[in-house]
Amino acid sequence: MNDIPTLDDIRRAALRIEQYIHRTPVLSSSAINDMVGAQLYFKCENFQKVGAFKARGALNAVLALEEGDMARGVATHSSGNHAAALAMAARIRDIPAYIVMPDNAPEVKKQAVDGYGAEITYCPPTLQDREDTLAQVVKKTGASVVHPFNDYRIITGQATAALELLEEVSDLDIIVAPVGGGGLLSGTALTAHYISPETSVIAAEPEGADDAYRSFKLGKIVPVENPDTIADGLLTTLGDKTFDIIQNYVEDVVTINDEPIINATRLIMQRMKIVVEPSAAVPLAVILKKRINVSEKKVGIILSGGNIDFENFKW
Amino acid sequence: MNDIPTLDDIRRAALRIEQYIHRTPVLSSSAINDMVGAQLYFKCENFQKVGAFKARGALNAVLALEEGDMARGVATHSSGNHAAALAMAARIRDIPAYIVMPDNAPEVKKQAVDGYGAEITYCPPTLQDREDTLAQVVKKTGASVVHPFNDYRIITGQATAALELLEEVSDLDIIVAPVGGGGLLSGTALTAHYISPETSVIAAEPEGADDAYRSFKLGKIVPVENPDTIADGLLTTLGDKTFDIIQNYVEDVVTINDEPIINATRLIMQRMKIVVEPSAAVPLAVILKKRINVSEKKVGIILSGGNIDFENFKW
Repeated sequence: MNDIPTLDDIRRAALRIEQYIHRTPVLSSSAINDMVGAQLYFKCENFQKVGAFKARGALNAVLALEEGDMARGVATHSSGNHAAALAMAARIRDIPAYIVMPDNAPEVKKQAVDGYGAEITYCPPTLQDREDTLAQVVKKTGASVVHPFNDYRIITGQATAALELLEEVSDLDIIVAPVGGGGLLSGTALTAHYISPETSVIAAEPEGADDAYRSFKLGKIVPVENPDTIADGLLTTLGDKTFDIIQNYVEDVVTINDEPIINATRLIMQRMKIVVEPSAAVPLAVILKKRINVSEKKVGIILSGGNIDFENFKW
Repeated sequence: MNDIPTLDDIRRAALRIEQYIHRTPVLSSSAINDMVGAQLYFKCENFQKVGAFKARGALNAVLALEEGDMARGVATHSSGNHAAALAMAARIRDIPAYIVMPDNAPEVKKQAVDGYGAEITYCPPTLQDREDTLAQVVKKTGASVVHPFNDYRIITGQATAALELLEEVSDLDIIVAPVGGGGLLSGTALTAHYISPETSVIAAEPEGADDAYRSFKLGKIVPVENPDTIADGLLTTLGDKTFDIIQNYVEDVVTINDEPIINATRLIMQRMKIVVEPSAAVPLAVILKKRINVSEKKVGIILSGGNIDFENFKW
């Protein structure tokens, strides 16, 4: 895929991955609705395979591989959920997965990757180290690289979450998605643009990793340096493919600091009795802190994942 | 109600409370099934109103009150979930609720009761103090006492959880329920006896509050003294009404210490992405530690509640 995904691409991806993923529920909480004065619809990708929406993109990429490339396997670098997702997708096709992980990745995410039988190579947690290590792995194995987000196959797969959400709740005023590298956000924005153009898509980003906010305002990619946030799934910088879509189809990017993110994480767990990782709570955090006007509106929220590192969370 | 509830009583209770409760989902986890070599069906009462099955019994009791008693309200003593449930039920009928709570009850449970507008009276955490304080409250207000478990209206309400579970999964070999005062357990045992007599009902109890185990083995109620367990919903001693039913309709009572309970709590949250309180994880803990033989069987588990005190849980 060399062009921005079309609606047809997204629908084909949905069919391609359908039998391997969960159609996750859309949940509401009257207590939280009362707190924010709006109707919130949470698309629960925390219940997705591997505990995150990343299963969608990884499966779409692996299932779309050419036969010739398949046998040599797939490789990536990822701080966690994409790694587990690619490992899971590779196991489904019974091909090798080579995963480069930063050595400071949460223990629960390391275990998940290991549990799917992937070969893990640890490296220091900088983008340069990750990319160098991945290049070595690919040279040695001939595996196909599946980038965590800057890849149209991935963006198309992630776009299927919003497709299901909009099939279930058709007249949303806003969808709020978290943004790290922008795979989920750009896919969500494309889907809304195609099937529900009256729905605004807004990105929620931690202040401690606010490259998307700055890139969006400046009109060019500003890499994040020394990101520092509890939302450990959102540390990465946008890629050229995700940024391009975000510039064209996302209404706004808003930021929020860690304390409201921690509070929103706890609130979702206490009120809805579902487990979310801090990255997934960033959209609710921006709503609770009134960074977006949602008054009386119908708002979709993508709960991106549930792989929280309980032991190290700031309860 | 002065006799052991009949199937007809249970079905009438189900209709009486239907519009005020959630029909909670029954979930499975292939990862946990693989770990235990059985098919486990979790009845998710953590998603119930007030976050626990207690909503069922409290609603049944309040909705069945005589008109004359209704206006003076209801009163109880409870360490938590029953208190919130009774407060919620009273609010639905717009009558007062007077709740006596031990001053060491978890903060999250105090807040829940307060949030429903009940009048809380704190007391020391002994059964004697609770009962004395409740007697004073009743003398002053004329409220009807709704005991947390030793009351057929409550037992009948709690019995509706197993009714829904068995409607959804009809051929269970075993149902495992946690036991504190025995309201859920006795209701579950009655329902299974009436509509699925081939299903064994087994109680799971923390070693640190093993009065049900000792009472069951000895054939008479042995009060628990100085209970000490992380399963804070299961600290109470059986009552005569619950013990009578348990003796007749429960197959066995098995105990487990706190470490496996903590591990089972964490496992459910990590794998199923749902929030449970430690009391709810006691059945899975006994299964993981092989205190019950579940090999190749279909096993229902009542996940009793999700009101965990995150800050004080031993992660």
